[in-house]
Amino acid sequence: MSSTDPDDRPTQDLLGRTDSEQIIQALDSGKNKRARKLLRRMHPAKIAAMLEMLEAEQRLALWQQIDAAQEERILPHLNRRLSGQLLGDSADAQPARPETEQEEEKSELNHLEAIRQALSLKKLKRVGKILHRMHPAKVAGLLEALPPEERLSVWSMVETERAGKVLTYLHDEIRIALALELDLEELIASAEHLELDDRVDLIQTLPAALGAKLLYASSAGQRAQLESMLSYPEDSAGGLMNADAIQVRADVRVSTVLRYLRLLEKLPPQTDMLMVVDRKGHYQGALHLSALVTADLGRAVAELMDRNIVGIAASASDSEVDRLFKELDLLSAPVVDEHNRVIGRITLDDVADLMREDTERTLMQMAGLDDEADIFAPVMVSSRRRAVWLGINLITAFSAAWVIGLFQATLEQLVALAVLMPIVASMGGIAGSQTLTLVIRGLALGQVQKGNLRILLNRELGVSILNGVLWALVIALLAVAWFDHWGLGAVLGSAILINLLCAALAGWGIPLLLERMGIDPALAGSVILTTVTDIVGFFAFLGLASILLL
Amino acid sequence: MSSTDPDDRPTQDLLGRTDSEQIIQALDSGKNKRARKLLRRMHPAKIAAMLEMLEAEQRLALWQQIDAAQEERILPHLNRRLSGQLLGDSADAQPARPETEQEEEKSELNHLEAIRQALSLKKLKRVGKILHRMHPAKVAGLLEALPPEERLSVWSMVETERAGKVLTYLHDEIRIALALELDLEELIASAEHLELDDRVDLIQTLPAALGAKLLYASSAGQRAQLESMLSYPEDSAGGLMNADAIQVRADVRVSTVLRYLRLLEKLPPQTDMLMVVDRKGHYQGALHLSALVTADLGRAVAELMDRNIVGIAASASDSEVDRLFKELDLLSAPVVDEHNRVIGRITLDDVADLMREDTERTLMQMAGLDDEADIFAPVMVSSRRRAVWLGINLITAFSAAWVIGLFQATLEQLVALAVLMPIVASMGGIAGSQTLTLVIRGLALGQVQKGNLRILLNRELGVSILNGVLWALVIALLAVAWFDHWGLGAVLGSAILINLLCAALAGWGIPLLLERMGIDPALAGSVILTTVTDIVGFFAFLGLASILLL
Repeated sequence: MSSTDPDDRPTQDLLGRTDSEQIIQALDSGKNKRARKLLRRMHPAKIAAMLEMLEAEQRLALWQQIDAAQEERILPHLNRRLSGQLLGDSADAQPARPETEQEEEKSELNHLEAIRQALSLKKLKRVGKILHRMHPAKVAGLLEALPPEERLSVWSMVETERAGKVLTYLHDEIRIALALELDLEELIASAEHLELDDRVDLIQTLPAALGAKLLYASSAGQRAQLESMLSYPEDSAGGLMNADAIQVRADVRVSTVLRYLRLLEKLPPQTDMLMVVDRKGHYQGALHLSALVTADLGRAVAELMDRNIVGIAASASDSEVDRLFKELDLLSAPVVDEHNRVIGRITLDDVADLMREDTERTLMQMAGLDDEADIFAPVMVSSRRRAVWLGINLITAFSAAWVIGLFQATLEQLVALAVLMPIVASMGGIAGSQTLTLVIRGLALGQVQKGNLRILLNRELGVSILNGVLWALVIALLAVAWFDHWGLGAVLGSAILINLLCAALAGWGIPLLLERMGIDPALAGSVILTTVTDIVGFFAFLGLASILLL
Repeated sequence: MSSTDPDDRPTQDLLGRTDSEQIIQALDSGKNKRARKLLRRMHPAKIAAMLEMLEAEQRLALWQQIDAAQEERILPHLNRRLSGQLLGDSADAQPARPETEQEEEKSELNHLEAIRQALSLKKLKRVGKILHRMHPAKVAGLLEALPPEERLSVWSMVETERAGKVLTYLHDEIRIALALELDLEELIASAEHLELDDRVDLIQTLPAALGAKLLYASSAGQRAQLESMLSYPEDSAGGLMNADAIQVRADVRVSTVLRYLRLLEKLPPQTDMLMVVDRKGHYQGALHLSALVTADLGRAVAELMDRNIVGIAASASDSEVDRLFKELDLLSAPVVDEHNRVIGRITLDDVADLMREDTERTLMQMAGLDDEADIFAPVMVSSRRRAVWLGINLITAFSAAWVIGLFQATLEQLVALAVLMPIVASMGGIAGSQTLTLVIRGLALGQVQKGNLRILLNRELGVSILNGVLWALVIALLAVAWFDHWGLGAVLGSAILINLLCAALAGWGIPLLLERMGIDPALAGSVILTTVTDIVGFFAFLGLASILLL
């Protein structure tokens, strides 16, 4: 109990405010973490006095921030009516029904709903209890699923020791927002519980000034490691690595290695291999722990080490790292500097996360969305972002309208053209986006390369001819049946065929062109494609109609 | 050299054909692996006689299948002119320029181009040499990047021992096609080199009859393990696991464990933990190798084991497995049966692959494509698949046309409506697909849940009102400037606003509805959305115009 003993000396902050004033201010501004910290330093009797003096609403808010352990010591200082009332409130913190933990764990739905209910009743203690039982990754998921205001309330109830870990699981936008919500002191305290690679991640996403403060708050030894890790781009091997690789010399025996490891007492998490180096620290090979534990004690490390595992250059790109992990079925791998000296290691979980984010980004970008954005961002913020995308699309839409505008005279004479023209554009768009998606993914997976571009184009043109002929016939016949006009059917069918051919060509060429220009094909590809298929579609249909039908 | 010594007894196949006949037939049908195998059994003099008797083209094809070691023994049996000619051809198998391996490794482009060039010159030996230096994963990538005919030639040059591994890296469609290309005997031989989980994967993708043959060709012990692994669905923990977990008892000491492991001599690849069980084989916890190597020899396993690592039920879904790996930062994890007995383990690389495939599938399905399909599939096959998607889209297109058809009279009176109407549909489609993508991804990541659906809808409606008002104004003004018709601008603006609101509602509701109906929202979502935005857009625009402008 000594650790929670109150520190009796009253503290003052820089502004000379008393503890009570600071606590009330922290509560008013939603800084619950700060309030809890201040409360833990106060004498129970003093807290009791505060509780008595506050208005009912503020009193409840204060009570919600008091630890269960502290509650017991405060209650004797309160009159019976008040203590009964507050205790009644605490009792409620335990759910009425005796739910088993497992039952609650079953679905996240329950967590989200339970927390939102507790929030609406201002039962922050209950929120804290639910959070305490959840894994940081789940807390992160929950925070992302909450609208911003409720998110801040819940965030303020996350324990400081776990806050850092929660931050690492969040998408960038929310991560920054919640990190900025913490006092610098809290942020530093929460980062202390993180592994170095997670801390690097955090520093990299924070605004530069804040990141620097976090960096300088680290111990001198850690700071050097962090600085070396920060010197590499986020998506390089150096940026992915953790500077905690254990190194052993190639010329020692198994028994010596085992003795050394026992001295260390604990290896970094996710260690499945040691890095073997020569006298000068140059990387030689990897010693799998599974080889170490099965080898005779007298054998030398050099005989046991796996030379197939090459050191990854710190400057290697994330996709190279991914390829190496995939090809060698690695769980972790050494990272070396330009002199082939071991400077860290990469574990598969970080690579897997990164590559998953890549595919996710493609998916979101194809709809003009930012994959790191908060889906509950303020309406104004989201609107501004999406307005850009709609504005770009408007150019496409007006180009199409302009093409139609060229044929107003034609449309006036044969209004059926107006009825049927969206079909041409739509079929072209769909067919084109199939080719486009195929090529974008093929480029990402390496299935599409310089050596087979021509073949792919021929195939796509072949497919579009077959499908063009098929659907041109079907659509033409439907149009003839509808408008009883053979010429119209013929024009419609021809336009469909032309547009499907152009769609294949565009779906194939646009991503290649964009990639050569250094633009991500997933981002701009579909807008450009639609522009092409709309313009070609309307032009072919209305143009042919003007020539042949009037 | 004894292993390559020819077996002098001539063999006959079931049809009674001689070696020579079989070889020529294998060559003619592109079964180069089979030809090589038969050749290895033949006497050099006999091969020399075959070479002399064949036509120039067949002779070259035969020569391409002969090992370097065998060449030397065949040459003395040939006349000088012929041997000089064939040797000249062999010399060519080494690239003229002294390229370093590293240089070649740099880019896959070179491999693809080098191989296609060698193929066009019929230099199969060169192909074999290039393949031999490549990692199976890269060979797989190369095979996928080749058109079907060339793919078969290259595939026939992959060594049998590596063929199984290559198969595991291929997408389903190509994997099946290439596996069927092998003789049963070859297929069995190539599968023997695979780890059990890879073999299970292979059996699961092959046609049932062939898979069963592969299963029964395994040794009795392996068959039992394979059968237990096959009894779980592919995307469950049981389907992901490998039945090679090492088990130790909780009540033994570290020294005993180490002695036991040294007796095993070798642990399965990617072993980073041992599974701790009680006397009855019930799972107790995990013993990390890193804990084992740092612990005092006298300590008991029970003190060292990590109880946080829970056994994953074999029936758990792949997304549950993924969540567990993510939450506990695992590299591997135990799998238990319904009695909590350890039956295997899962390694992170397999989980990562699976989850990556999931995102990839979403991406492809949104364009109506199959992510396991061969992008170089025969044009007829691809056309048929894509025709279905175009046909579905045609229903959308004709519904839109039908709506326009209702307003033919209106269009005849004011043809500017026909010019502007695609803008309404297009803006609605783009805005709707943003909401749709957001919800589909949110559902997949758990950001969107029952507890926050309403909030999300409100936000999306808010965003669409803001953007609707903004773009309605802009577009209306542009239309007024173009057609000098204030009423037209007002109608256009109103229609845009209405359609953007409906788009948000549809983009939010369609994926939720599809999910409740058990349909993958990524597959059908965008088609249904476009149908809604087209119909609403045209109806609002032309309907308002009929009422207000005529």
